[in-house]
Parts: sequence; C-alpha cells; structure tokens
Amino acid sequence: MKEVMAVPWPKIADAVVRRLVIYLRVLDREARAQERTISSYQLAQKTGVSPALVRKDLAWFGEFGTRGVGYDVAYLRDQLHKILRLEQEVRAVLVGAGSLGIALTRYNVRRYADDPTFNVRIVALFDTDPGKIGLMIDGIEIFPLRLLGEKVPELGATMGIITVPAYAAQQVADELVKAGIEGIVNFAPTPIHVPPRVALQTADLSLEMQYLAYIMMSRREEREEASGR
Amino acid sequence: MKEVMAVPWPKIADAVVRRLVIYLRVLDREARAQERTISSYQLAQKTGVSPALVRKDLAWFGEFGTRGVGYDVAYLRDQLHKILRLEQEVRAVLVGAGSLGIALTRYNVRRYADDPTFNVRIVALFDTDPGKIGLMIDGIEIFPLRLLGEKVPELGATMGIITVPAYAAQQVADELVKAGIEGIVNFAPTPIHVPPRVALQTADLSLEMQYLAYIMMSRREEREEASGR
Repeated sequence: MKEVMAVPWPKIADAVVRRLVIYLRVLDREARAQERTISSYQLAQKTGVSPALVRKDLAWFGEFGTRGVGYDVAYLRDQLHKILRLEQEVRAVLVGAGSLGIALTRYNVRRYADDPTFNVRIVALFDTDPGKIGLMIDGIEIFPLRLLGEKVPELGATMGIITVPAYAAQQVADELVKAGIEGIVNFAPTPIHVPPRVALQTADLSLEMQYLAYIMMSRREEREEASGR
Repeated sequence: MKEVMAVPWPKIADAVVRRLVIYLRVLDREARAQERTISSYQLAQKTGVSPALVRKDLAWFGEFGTRGVGYDVAYLRDQLHKILRLEQEVRAVLVGAGSLGIALTRYNVRRYADDPTFNVRIVALFDTDPGKIGLMIDGIEIFPLRLLGEKVPELGATMGIITVPAYAAQQVADELVKAGIEGIVNFAPTPIHVPPRVALQTADLSLEMQYLAYIMMSRREEREEASGR
C-alpha cells in the first residue's frame, strides 16, 4: 500500500473502508426499522467491531455522535454514503445464470430500485447453456459467454460477478479480465487469481451460518451450565 | 454481556468470535490454494482487521505464529476449527425454496460434502407453493410450510434460514421461533424481530459488491491522479 497522499478525497485504509461498509449496512437496517439513534456500543455489538474502534473510525470523518445520546442514524448513514462515494453507479456483468446467479440478479434489481443509495447495478448475465440464452431475469438479458468481450465495453460494465461452478471459475475470471473488467466478486467456492490491477473480493454464502452456529452452541452450553447439568 | 466466568471452554467475546470466523474463511481459502504460511500482515490485509488486532486475537489462544515466518496455515485453521467447535453438526431448515433458497441449499450440500470441518447442514426446505412440495433439491426435500412445527423437532433442527420475500419474513420468523428453533439467519431484505433467547444473524448478499465498488472507484481516482488528469 502507498502512503497517504494529497488526493482530492481522504485516502482511507482498506480495513477502515471495510468496516465503514459494515457500519453502513447496520445503519441501513436500523433506519428501515425506524430507529433514530444508535450508540457506538450498539453499533459495535451489531458489527463485531469494538466500541472504541467504532468511535475511532467515525471520528476520522468528523463529529457525528453526541455523548450520552449516540449517533443520529439517518445522518450518519448519509455521511457514510457520501464518504464511500455510493452516488456513483457501478455497472456489473454476472457470469453463470444458475440458481445463485439468478437469485443475486433478482436481489440486485429489487435493491437497486428500492434503495436510492445502492450503487451496483447488474446490467447483463452470461452463460454457456444455449437453453438459457435470450431469457430475461427481471428485465436483464442472458447473453452467450462468447459475447462477453464485446458486451462489457458496450454496456460500460466495470465489475464482474462470478457464479459459475468451481471448475469454470478461473477461466471466467480470465475472460472478464481480458474484457477490461476492473473488479471481480467471486462467489464460486474456489480461489481465483487475477492481475494486481484488477480488484478481487471473495464472497462466502456460509459465513453468517457458521457464525450463528457458534453463537447457538455457546448459548446452549451457558444454559446447560446455568441449569447445573 | 456477562463477565467472563469459569465455563468449560474459554468464553470469547462476540466481536472476537466474528473475527475468528473471518480468519478461518481466509485460512480455508489459503489452504485450498496450497499456501503453507501466512503472516499476520497478510491475514490483516485479507480480512480488513488491523495486523495488531490479528496478533492479539490469535495470542488469546496460544502461540500460533513464528516471528518472521508467520502462521502455519493448516495448523492455525485446525486450531480455529477446534476453538469454534466446528466438529458439532448443526441442522438447519430453510424456508423459501426460490432461487436463493435453492442456490444456498446446493451450495450447502456441496460444501458439507467437500469440507469435513463445515458443520451446518440443511436438512429440509419449506415453501407454500403447492407446485414445489415434494421436489428434491440435491437430495433435500421441500415440505409444505404448515409441517414446520412437526418437522423441526423430528429432524433435530436448531437453525432456521429465511429466504422468503420481505413481506413474509416476519411471519416465517415467528413460525420458526414457535417450532423451537434456537437461531435464525435472515437473508430476506428486511429486519425481523425475535425473542432474546433466539440468536439472529442478518446476511447481506451485496456487502462484497458494495465494498468492491468502493475499492474500484478509489483505484480509478488514483490512476487518474497519477496520469495527471
């Protein structure tokens, strides 16, 4: 990583950005649940970050909180949207129109329509199955994979989402890179390699399940302890 | 939160548990990519946690690392599996056999078969659509939702996974709670409420996309800066 430079926006460390996105998710949920304020302690509890680190992260961007009252949910959410530049649309292509690819597309279309600050938009799907080519998923067309190199610049897409089986993931990643994609989210259950100029994120569908399983076992042991078993 | 007590296993703070699960995901990926060692700095980069906090979290559980060499990937992964009690199977029911529910089930069946340390197992699906009842998804049957209260104890399920549309999520959560479920993962894009005795996790399919979008925009601005635009 380079040192902080005089760039037109504050250069935020990757680790901080990641936490800001997680705070934002909680704030979005709280706002939708009509909550008006949230304390750094509550934000910490709901995100798994320590309260001190929450306060430190948010202090970076100015004085958001009021001692004893906490943060104004809507205001803090709007500030994080601005800091994270969520007003700029990012267009994505998704490769692999199986059940996961279709589920993600439907989720994305709904989310993009409902949430004016949600900025990632899936604009085309790709698959190799001739039976799927030409089908529309909530208004988004499935194209043959061989058209990827042509469609990506035509549609102005800069993000690629991989939802193919593990064995095909690397080849699809290579084709996305060749098509000029700047960043990839990999949902395939296998690691992929991309050149350093391409940003890569790995998504894991089972993270929350595994975490919940631990919490449940831990609570059960506590109950068994408490009941003297 | 209660204070640390003399319980038969170390009582780990929620925030630490959450990070351990995230470390474990990275270690699993590294192990599958044939990596033998990882430094706290690399683990920090790949998880968004600070290197100092990575070292502090892992030091809690003994001396895993070697200065200048880093951690042995396979050993650290195995230790985290033990700490997180991933050897105990947790049975889950999934409500909502739409594209997301089916994708999660297929992923889960494969993951459970391939990864001997993966401990969450989907054992039944539920839906209200008569056309889906009785169908099998990779060997897992879809039951009518009205049988939930009967099937949950019969199958020994303790976790519920919600993949229904937003409008139905709270009702399904209530039925899962009534059926005796101890923990819920909510994939529906709406907040739900459960009694304090039920553990709740919210899954967000767009977290990685949103994070990647930020990284991509940040890199682009850096490139434009560098090229003097």
